[in-house]
Amino acid sequence: MTGSLVIAGLGPGAESLVTPEVGAALAQATDVVGYIPYVARVSERSGLTLHPSDNRIEIDRSRHALEMASEGRQVVVVSSGDPGVFAMASAVFETVEAGPAAWRDLDIRVLPGITAMLAAAARAGAPLGHDFCAINLSDNLKPWALIEKRLRLAAEADFAMAFYNPRSRSRPEGFAKTLQILQETCGNARPIIFARAVSTPEEEIRVVPLVDCTPEMADMRTMVLVGSSTTRIIERNGTPIVYTPRSVET
Amino acid sequence: MTGSLVIAGLGPGAESLVTPEVGAALAQATDVVGYIPYVARVSERSGLTLHPSDNRIEIDRSRHALEMASEGRQVVVVSSGDPGVFAMASAVFETVEAGPAAWRDLDIRVLPGITAMLAAAARAGAPLGHDFCAINLSDNLKPWALIEKRLRLAAEADFAMAFYNPRSRSRPEGFAKTLQILQETCGNARPIIFARAVSTPEEEIRVVPLVDCTPEMADMRTMVLVGSSTTRIIERNGTPIVYTPRSVET
Repeated sequence: MTGSLVIAGLGPGAESLVTPEVGAALAQATDVVGYIPYVARVSERSGLTLHPSDNRIEIDRSRHALEMASEGRQVVVVSSGDPGVFAMASAVFETVEAGPAAWRDLDIRVLPGITAMLAAAARAGAPLGHDFCAINLSDNLKPWALIEKRLRLAAEADFAMAFYNPRSRSRPEGFAKTLQILQETCGNARPIIFARAVSTPEEEIRVVPLVDCTPEMADMRTMVLVGSSTTRIIERNGTPIVYTPRSVET
Repeated sequence: MTGSLVIAGLGPGAESLVTPEVGAALAQATDVVGYIPYVARVSERSGLTLHPSDNRIEIDRSRHALEMASEGRQVVVVSSGDPGVFAMASAVFETVEAGPAAWRDLDIRVLPGITAMLAAAARAGAPLGHDFCAINLSDNLKPWALIEKRLRLAAEADFAMAFYNPRSRSRPEGFAKTLQILQETCGNARPIIFARAVSTPEEEIRVVPLVDCTPEMADMRTMVLVGSSTTRIIERNGTPIVYTPRSVET
């Protein structure tokens, strides 16, 4: 049988946000590969082997998946969110490019998922309803100077912003610097959304004016969204609605 | 009965990309409101009234939906893609803010969907696998000068880019200007992806070097994705794979 490799997005956490396309791929898989907590979201069944692996070994994991697909297995690599947004798809293609020529002609498909920033935005209202950018704040794989340059240019462009991986125990200082850059460039009135563990039982949404933000408000399970200069807050009972209008006045 | 308003994303076209959460909301709706081709994607059934409406009357449509929810109906406003990305969610919240105070306390929820740029990226490989921005190229609701400023700053930040609404019959010149700005700022080697009608029977994916792009390659059903300076192409039989690596060298 010809093998295949599917790189599938499981969405932010809730089963109700997994697309039927991804569900069908998992139902046909012989092998599921991925980071431990994502593989734990896949139901065990006879004929399916689960291959959970640790964080930060994305290339080893990709190689393993490609080898199994080459041997004729139906392999699904699972990511949370969307596999193409700071997740497994790029790691797999890096491995394909560096690997044997035969890997290029494997049947490889990417199945999109609900990425964290859009799940978070939906909970808050529509903060990304106008032009926006998405930045990975981790400097594990790129120099901090590039992140800082992008933050300053994004503020100058007046993009709303979505930050992935804002803060981890091993790099607590990056998000503090980010808040400082935003305060220098954006003005203090800007609403910031801290959306933690969206669509899971631990979900928590906070809307905080930039001037009141502290680094501790984010961790690795938090998406941070930053309004643009036109972003509005609708006060009401409960969490306010944050949205960015479609129009900018001429 | 208490009314509710759900703003739901139907994804780019295929039924297999509609989340179960959105399916459940449609199954409970008494009224579905939206642009004609999106409402046409919802199955008719007894107890459900469909309210298709024309393009460019988003505020009228929002008001109608809010009025029905106020009267106790279970209303779903449908968008293609994700409702928070250049779609109906902002229009509804603009209407809420301008409307009677009671509308603020309605049960309003946004249900995310697979937005066009992520469906398109998945088909091409992983072109948005590193920092990126999303820009609506339509100047119906913002000055062209702002679009141009954002394009130049996005190029300087070396973001990959996703363009919504690149070109329509009424504004053919904007995308021509966009290509010119990209050629000035990005260098000619940059890969451009034209992804038309992704996940529908009319789907068409083209990968074209920036130097060979012409405005006619895009229309209103096309998403345009622009690689960053680090984006790679893996040649193989058939459509090449386009991906942006996770790393940038220090």
